[in-house]
Amino acid sequence: MTTTRSLTVSSPTSKFEKTDVPLPEVKPNDVRIEISFSGICHSDIHQARNEWHEGIFPMVPGHEIAGLVVEVGAEVTKFIVGDRAGVGTMVDSCRVCEYCLNNEENYCVKGNVATYNGQHFDGTPTYGGYAKEIVVDQNYVLHIPEEIDLDVAAPLLCAGITLYSPLVRYQAGPGKKVAILGLGGLGHLGVKVAAAMGAEVTVLGHSETKRGDAIAFGAKDYVLTDTAFETHVAVFDFIINTTSADLDVDLLLSLLRPHGALVNVGLPGKRQTYDPFSIIAGEKSIAGINTGGIALTQQMLDFAAKNKIGSNIELVDAGNPSSIDAAYDRVVNSDVRYRFVIDAATI
Amino acid sequence: MTTTRSLTVSSPTSKFEKTDVPLPEVKPNDVRIEISFSGICHSDIHQARNEWHEGIFPMVPGHEIAGLVVEVGAEVTKFIVGDRAGVGTMVDSCRVCEYCLNNEENYCVKGNVATYNGQHFDGTPTYGGYAKEIVVDQNYVLHIPEEIDLDVAAPLLCAGITLYSPLVRYQAGPGKKVAILGLGGLGHLGVKVAAAMGAEVTVLGHSETKRGDAIAFGAKDYVLTDTAFETHVAVFDFIINTTSADLDVDLLLSLLRPHGALVNVGLPGKRQTYDPFSIIAGEKSIAGINTGGIALTQQMLDFAAKNKIGSNIELVDAGNPSSIDAAYDRVVNSDVRYRFVIDAATI
Repeated sequence: MTTTRSLTVSSPTSKFEKTDVPLPEVKPNDVRIEISFSGICHSDIHQARNEWHEGIFPMVPGHEIAGLVVEVGAEVTKFIVGDRAGVGTMVDSCRVCEYCLNNEENYCVKGNVATYNGQHFDGTPTYGGYAKEIVVDQNYVLHIPEEIDLDVAAPLLCAGITLYSPLVRYQAGPGKKVAILGLGGLGHLGVKVAAAMGAEVTVLGHSETKRGDAIAFGAKDYVLTDTAFETHVAVFDFIINTTSADLDVDLLLSLLRPHGALVNVGLPGKRQTYDPFSIIAGEKSIAGINTGGIALTQQMLDFAAKNKIGSNIELVDAGNPSSIDAAYDRVVNSDVRYRFVIDAATI
Repeated sequence: MTTTRSLTVSSPTSKFEKTDVPLPEVKPNDVRIEISFSGICHSDIHQARNEWHEGIFPMVPGHEIAGLVVEVGAEVTKFIVGDRAGVGTMVDSCRVCEYCLNNEENYCVKGNVATYNGQHFDGTPTYGGYAKEIVVDQNYVLHIPEEIDLDVAAPLLCAGITLYSPLVRYQAGPGKKVAILGLGGLGHLGVKVAAAMGAEVTVLGHSETKRGDAIAFGAKDYVLTDTAFETHVAVFDFIINTTSADLDVDLLLSLLRPHGALVNVGLPGKRQTYDPFSIIAGEKSIAGINTGGIALTQQMLDFAAKNKIGSNIELVDAGNPSSIDAAYDRVVNSDVRYRFVIDAATI
């Protein structure tokens, strides 16, 4: 059986170590990708530490994958060897339900197959991007345009689509006032993309430390959430919450114009509360959105290339696997500008 | 000063009594309406009992008003004496903000002038529909089509538009599966309107007592909320919550298809809670909506006339004002089929 060298946690309390995990054979529609870079998403941490649901261990996290195609199956038409390729949060779906047929594989009725901590339809576990190689069906692999370096492209595969998707859905563009709550791995890409779409972007933050970065990324304004209720009532068309912190939902709703939406892409671990008056009074909504389909993800990558958008990253050398554990701790402490990306050459 | 005989509460703990309250002079754009019928809305009770915010007393509730025009100001063009007329939840707004100009006077940036328990822009209090007469600017008065009797039309002015508005917004129609949570004054009109729009309607209820009525009103199915999570997961395009009870928000969200909305028009008095996963997983939303503008309200009345939709009512004789107190207690106990309407001839 073929294997690939990976960064693995053997249990929710284990440190990262390097092991060889099974690499699926390249079937006719598959491509084998030599991974160049792999982003560290906050959800990797939740899953590696078993904070969401019962995880499948050993686990190789990683669903922000950028690399090069090194082998193609006999029926592959979408890629040739040498192509720049990306893999995001899913590697398969049923392909026949109304959502799959409507390019919304992320809402597949059978549940899409997660890139890691999931199971292929044959029951075998999926292993993610903290590895040297991955084998994926061509239909779930993206083209990474030449205009984006692979290291800064990697985080687009999850963080990028996670923000691009609501910005498209809620029609960010000229004349729209968009607030991004939280300036981290997700939020900083949200600012860049929304600004590139022509929207007027405000970052809502809890301290002054990131004001300069917010403006540099394209925000017109930076507002402290503590004072926003005095200065920004009924201002925004929508707010995208990128944080995992508990929310003052009613405060945020008060910053929205009538018909506005508080769109959640960050996942607070606890239940949140709201006053029904806050949504009824101005026909507002508390909404959520979960990444996007493959076609939309490709559209996002093409948009990013056209607008020279990549993630701001800190590169992680995995020569010693403990660097991943250390990076995780820093992500939890919001101490990263703005996404850790593992250099797969060091795995 | 002209006055009109009204049903009044002098304080939040008072019983109803008959008093004469000031009736504004008929200015050039005003019409004077002899009230025939006035519906009892649950919000009347909340306000008369001061359960929402500090009320203005003495109070004459009532914003589901149907009657006949008996006098028109010199510049009135929309009505002539003898016209059938309706008044809903508002009697004025700023008329110049973007929402007023967009036929959404209900979201007027200055706040619309509530039909009662509010203040005209000159500072005088507004008195509502539990009265013999009311004077209102023609632009905030509706035409009640001949096809609807005035008694069953009265509740359309608040309950009707409150359900019509979300059904239009969320595009109820053929192919759409709509659930109505709660079969009361609001819900029973929601079923009738949604069915007339061609949607497949399911009523979600907590007991079997109203199953027969639900089907008679046009519902295809009646489902107990206690068992819905076993049988109706990911079924509905949207759910309209018409109740004021605490909600199992996550359960209701689980009944929605991806992109579905839980649309609140009922107002629980307490904060509600939700699990962020419940909205993010399927791009769902917890939404609210608050009546509708004047043009939409007229459209609703015309739709009701065309489709022979009126409220099911119990007529209240106000000869003894204590009948209003008694009706209030029955509304609180959900003991009305389906809306109390005061016969203004008995005031």
